[in-house]
Amino acid sequence: MNKNVRFEGLEVGYDIPALPGMDAADIQTPCLILDLDALERNVVAMGERARAMGMRHRVHGKMHKSVDVALLQERLGGSVGVCCQKVSEAEVFARGGIKDVLVSNQVRDPAKIDRLARLPKLGARTIVCVDDVANVADLSAAAQRHGTHIECLVEIDCGAGRCGVTTTPDVVAVAQAIAAAPGLRFAGLQAYQGAMQHLDHFADRKAKIDIAVAQVRDAVEALEAVGLECDIVGGGGTGSYYFEGASGVYNELQCGSYAFMDADYGRILDENGQRIDRGEWENALFILTSVMSHVKPGRAICDAGLKAQSVDSGLPVIFGRDDVTYVKCSDEHGVIDDPQGVLRVNDKLRLVPGHCDPTCNVHDWYVGVRGGKVEVVWPVSARGKAY
Amino acid sequence: MNKNVRFEGLEVGYDIPALPGMDAADIQTPCLILDLDALERNVVAMGERARAMGMRHRVHGKMHKSVDVALLQERLGGSVGVCCQKVSEAEVFARGGIKDVLVSNQVRDPAKIDRLARLPKLGARTIVCVDDVANVADLSAAAQRHGTHIECLVEIDCGAGRCGVTTTPDVVAVAQAIAAAPGLRFAGLQAYQGAMQHLDHFADRKAKIDIAVAQVRDAVEALEAVGLECDIVGGGGTGSYYFEGASGVYNELQCGSYAFMDADYGRILDENGQRIDRGEWENALFILTSVMSHVKPGRAICDAGLKAQSVDSGLPVIFGRDDVTYVKCSDEHGVIDDPQGVLRVNDKLRLVPGHCDPTCNVHDWYVGVRGGKVEVVWPVSARGKAY
Repeated sequence: MNKNVRFEGLEVGYDIPALPGMDAADIQTPCLILDLDALERNVVAMGERARAMGMRHRVHGKMHKSVDVALLQERLGGSVGVCCQKVSEAEVFARGGIKDVLVSNQVRDPAKIDRLARLPKLGARTIVCVDDVANVADLSAAAQRHGTHIECLVEIDCGAGRCGVTTTPDVVAVAQAIAAAPGLRFAGLQAYQGAMQHLDHFADRKAKIDIAVAQVRDAVEALEAVGLECDIVGGGGTGSYYFEGASGVYNELQCGSYAFMDADYGRILDENGQRIDRGEWENALFILTSVMSHVKPGRAICDAGLKAQSVDSGLPVIFGRDDVTYVKCSDEHGVIDDPQGVLRVNDKLRLVPGHCDPTCNVHDWYVGVRGGKVEVVWPVSARGKAY
Repeated sequence: MNKNVRFEGLEVGYDIPALPGMDAADIQTPCLILDLDALERNVVAMGERARAMGMRHRVHGKMHKSVDVALLQERLGGSVGVCCQKVSEAEVFARGGIKDVLVSNQVRDPAKIDRLARLPKLGARTIVCVDDVANVADLSAAAQRHGTHIECLVEIDCGAGRCGVTTTPDVVAVAQAIAAAPGLRFAGLQAYQGAMQHLDHFADRKAKIDIAVAQVRDAVEALEAVGLECDIVGGGGTGSYYFEGASGVYNELQCGSYAFMDADYGRILDENGQRIDRGEWENALFILTSVMSHVKPGRAICDAGLKAQSVDSGLPVIFGRDDVTYVKCSDEHGVIDDPQGVLRVNDKLRLVPGHCDPTCNVHDWYVGVRGGKVEVVWPVSARGKAY
């Protein structure tokens, strides 16, 4: 979307960390940078894997919150659209030209329901999750009020422990209510097993998804028995998509983190016991940080702290280095163990964040780098869209 | 600064959570709200306490990143200006009319030094911290290049373990280099003991500050012996300001969190063993959140997760309720234990965030509420200014 971003008047180091065309050495820190080669390889690889399994891939836009990345995923990865978690976030993607948008979440507030019902007017197929019959009448009324159609998935809680119904009779009851409601269309099932994505071992993750698959298969068959077909049976994250892909029940994946990778995902193991960031995927997202003080031997201070990242899933890892370690994070500082004193003030380091989604959410810009140059600067389009 | 914010064209629920004049019941969630009565009482109280101790109070702007809150602290609390941690953040305050701005941090990158040296042209006294003689020549060259003056504090590491020199001879060496450098002025000492602010017990915090006070007194005397006077001896946070105020050595406080309070600070104990959020300060900042799903008995799901807060210092506390508990935080969801099933979908709750600074940093707006109405909507002016 650089075509729609006006860079005139933006000051590097105040409004924006870099401008397209700059040398990478001049990027202001702390900021997010994307290794465009690695990102593109990740996107292409996921496209190929989904196709090989006969799956659609609806990329998870909540991870990057970026229209530009979503469009890249369509172009290079063949994605069918995005899912995201909030109505305002969905609106950013729809306004940015994504034609198929799923809010993979509940929408209950009257003002949010009203905005959701207007989304189709932006040219986007609009889908939402429902876990409560009480929600159906409100969605239906809003769609009729605006003369639009909202497609609805019944959300099954298959292990995430958040929203979602837990029994097949409840799935059928909600689905039938949707199917009967004017302005709504029953579109299938949402069944994302979020709680197991970060389990280290492949076999542990598979055991959890086997339970989810059985639950979803039961629901699909019960729906067929009452004459309801599932256009979409969606789920699957970066730690599990191959299971959903092989299930014979799911038909749409919802992976997000694969495109950027982070330290918490990177350490999980594939079928062969390999870390997934050492082969399956590459680190493409980094927090670029500078050393800003080094008056004590053995300890350097860098400029990326809590306001440049989220540490909910652990501290960042310093990319490509085993001689220095990020050991402590405060509001605007990171403490780096440097036992041999190899770092110098103004040295730059690439941090792999612990958790990419909430880290991207604190930044306004992605700086896309290739061959030592800033090739693109993309806004984190939906940052701040939490409603 | 509402005078400079143009609300026309901003859509509630997309760009902004509320507009001035709205009923508080119509605020879109999740968002930050300020109880203006509580905020004003906190600000007035800190002004009175600082005055009673004969201390100047330079409020910490990194906490709120808001020009409006800083101006309120000047008007009602008699603050002398702000400190903050980044040059771009300082520039926001200087542009917003704050006339005395300290970057209580090191500035080493050439582009950042250049921006810092231009700050006085915005009409603000400009102060920065130095912990390395190698920094002095760069700061001096930049000040001369722009025909400005930068005031410099020598930063002492008195327990925070980040930046700062640790010995009196090093203090004197850096101070003398500053005093001798054209374009710079030696202005005193920065000695913030950050590592002990959150120790639960008053006596434990006092033991730590006693060490810092001795260290600072030694430095002040050694500087006087070489003919260098300290205009500013700064430090003191919400957990310690009374110690610095009574020290006879410090003359400027740098409290931030007192104005908003958070759950991690709130639980520390005052001299009488009372939690500081039960008397000394009031909770004035909240994350307003809505219940968005409640299909399982005993468990409600709300719309404030990691993208509405930082959980580095623990989960949020639900204000004014002991019947429900926030127990788990994922990207866009919070899980609430509701053992008696008292919550209903669309009920609103006020969360006291675990840590206010990085929580404010993920939001674009403060919604100031009084008497059930939205009185003001203030931008988080320096959000995204991390450079």
